[in-house]
Amino acid sequence: MDGKNNQPCQIYAADIDSIKEAQVRIAPFIHRTPVLSSSTLDSLAGKQLFFKCECFQKGGAFKIRGASNAIFSLDDLEASKGVVTHSSGNHAAAVSLAAKLRKIPAYIVIPENAPKCKVENVKRYGGQVIWSEVTMQSREAVAKKVLEDTGAVLIHPFNDGRIISGQGTISLELLEQVPGIGAIIVPISGGGLISGISLAAKAINPSIRIIGAEPKGADDASQSKVAGRIVTLPETNTIADGLHYLCIGAISLAFKKSFLGFLRPVVRDLVDDIITVSDEEIIKAMRMCYEILKVVVEPSGAIGLAAVLSDQFKQTTAWQESNKVAIIVSGGNVDLAALWDSLGR
Amino acid sequence: MDGKNNQPCQIYAADIDSIKEAQVRIAPFIHRTPVLSSSTLDSLAGKQLFFKCECFQKGGAFKIRGASNAIFSLDDLEASKGVVTHSSGNHAAAVSLAAKLRKIPAYIVIPENAPKCKVENVKRYGGQVIWSEVTMQSREAVAKKVLEDTGAVLIHPFNDGRIISGQGTISLELLEQVPGIGAIIVPISGGGLISGISLAAKAINPSIRIIGAEPKGADDASQSKVAGRIVTLPETNTIADGLHYLCIGAISLAFKKSFLGFLRPVVRDLVDDIITVSDEEIIKAMRMCYEILKVVVEPSGAIGLAAVLSDQFKQTTAWQESNKVAIIVSGGNVDLAALWDSLGR
Repeated sequence: MDGKNNQPCQIYAADIDSIKEAQVRIAPFIHRTPVLSSSTLDSLAGKQLFFKCECFQKGGAFKIRGASNAIFSLDDLEASKGVVTHSSGNHAAAVSLAAKLRKIPAYIVIPENAPKCKVENVKRYGGQVIWSEVTMQSREAVAKKVLEDTGAVLIHPFNDGRIISGQGTISLELLEQVPGIGAIIVPISGGGLISGISLAAKAINPSIRIIGAEPKGADDASQSKVAGRIVTLPETNTIADGLHYLCIGAISLAFKKSFLGFLRPVVRDLVDDIITVSDEEIIKAMRMCYEILKVVVEPSGAIGLAAVLSDQFKQTTAWQESNKVAIIVSGGNVDLAALWDSLGR
Repeated sequence: MDGKNNQPCQIYAADIDSIKEAQVRIAPFIHRTPVLSSSTLDSLAGKQLFFKCECFQKGGAFKIRGASNAIFSLDDLEASKGVVTHSSGNHAAAVSLAAKLRKIPAYIVIPENAPKCKVENVKRYGGQVIWSEVTMQSREAVAKKVLEDTGAVLIHPFNDGRIISGQGTISLELLEQVPGIGAIIVPISGGGLISGISLAAKAINPSIRIIGAEPKGADDASQSKVAGRIVTLPETNTIADGLHYLCIGAISLAFKKSFLGFLRPVVRDLVDDIITVSDEEIIKAMRMCYEILKVVVEPSGAIGLAAVLSDQFKQTTAWQESNKVAIIVSGGNVDLAALWDSLGR
């Protein structure tokens, strides 16, 4: 793509063209996930809600979209040595699955405190588990060594245009499935999901509002948005701690990284508001997902509903302007025992 | 429809025409439910599985299809006095909801031991709760009195061609959504669901196999099919007892009624096999629905998967002939506390 008006050739790490290319590339490997609705939840929210259920995606989360786009974007020579990532979450399983589909090795660096079931997911999809210590330094050092030893390619969970393009395919599907969407509520993860969704949705219809949803106990994205600079929290405190391996803590920490480098502008420029919700609101929303929507979600999958039901949402332009509100249900990988503990609180 | 060959005008209580009419009639009031799939479950089953998720239906179960077809089939005079049913299950809520949509009263006779949450469902949809004693005699007597007092119309949960036609719309959707289905696995409820599904599916493609799924502890349908006559069990023993208000016990008991009168031939003639599964198999299948499919199901919603994973299924013609197997996930109305108890067993 050529630049114009002296702007750089590509303002963001991805654009509507790269997202449409991703849609074609990954179509054979992913599910076109359904959109669910509930008149009971509509009544509670005062809006028509549309739940884009990525919990039904392959691997139980949206991550396969970005991972398969990145891995099938590699040329044969690049791909031949395999791929590496370090993650204890849904990205690890997605990279393993996409590499299996491409028939190349996947080396997954996993911290030694990772929950067993996530490790099992990686193994089930054929990923080669390489243990590291718990610290980010150790994870990165081990990943670097694996890269050197194997000649494999690093697949970053979000700081990568191919990943963002893959996640952006959610918007293409959603806006086809439900015409007239006025706002999309997106859990703030590493920033890749909300970046891809924003870029695609606003290219199709610039008036669509994008709202990030973040836990109050780890609201660095919200604070950063208000301050106009990166705010680093001394610590985080959210349901993710209580639920062991669930993603909200990791999501909030990792988000800071999306303020670095080329990803920063997407969240800064295209995300209209960030709503923060308490753990109690997340748990209440999870229970509604189970009891009313009949969908198994992890806490980060329910946070969008929690945001829509919050008073904060009623202060946004999105609330004033939109009748049809989409909620991205990002994933459903949850340990039932941990879930029950959290619902019983 | 005119008879031919001296057969009665209508062999069964419903046919493909009445089912297609139902589809048009109920379209404004129901969800077109999605079909989910999972390569992990495909590997376990050795078949391509397609889950028709009626747990996402309005009211959390397929019952609204039949209830709305029956209630919107009434002429204005018939409808004006309202409708009556006796049920403590999903049919009660469905009749309440359909009556609310038609803007007529719904009188729901509920036994005094009915679980609170089911009663709440009825009330939430505006049904008028009328208590009876627990016995079927009392339920029927109270319903009869309500009929006399109000002049309302009885909406039977399954022994009614309009109900069967409504439930049959599932097949029309399913066979549009997934071409090439070779077999459909259906929980044996009162007989209305499997009758409607069989009539529609075999009218479209007579080679489609229909398999009923029934709990071992209440296998009167299976025994009756083998014996060629109605077998009445002295007692039933299934997960329904442990899970309080869940439907399997009621389903199995009620099935006997479908052997009476005009419904008998559908199950006798069009259901190819009935597979019985243990409570342990049902619980295992429920867990898979939660952990792999990410769908909240009640025991009767998971029984189809349990049947497909059973050794018995491998003995059927359906197994030999079919690559694509559909499973009807009939409902997702489950109390989370009771669920957790059963999964923890």
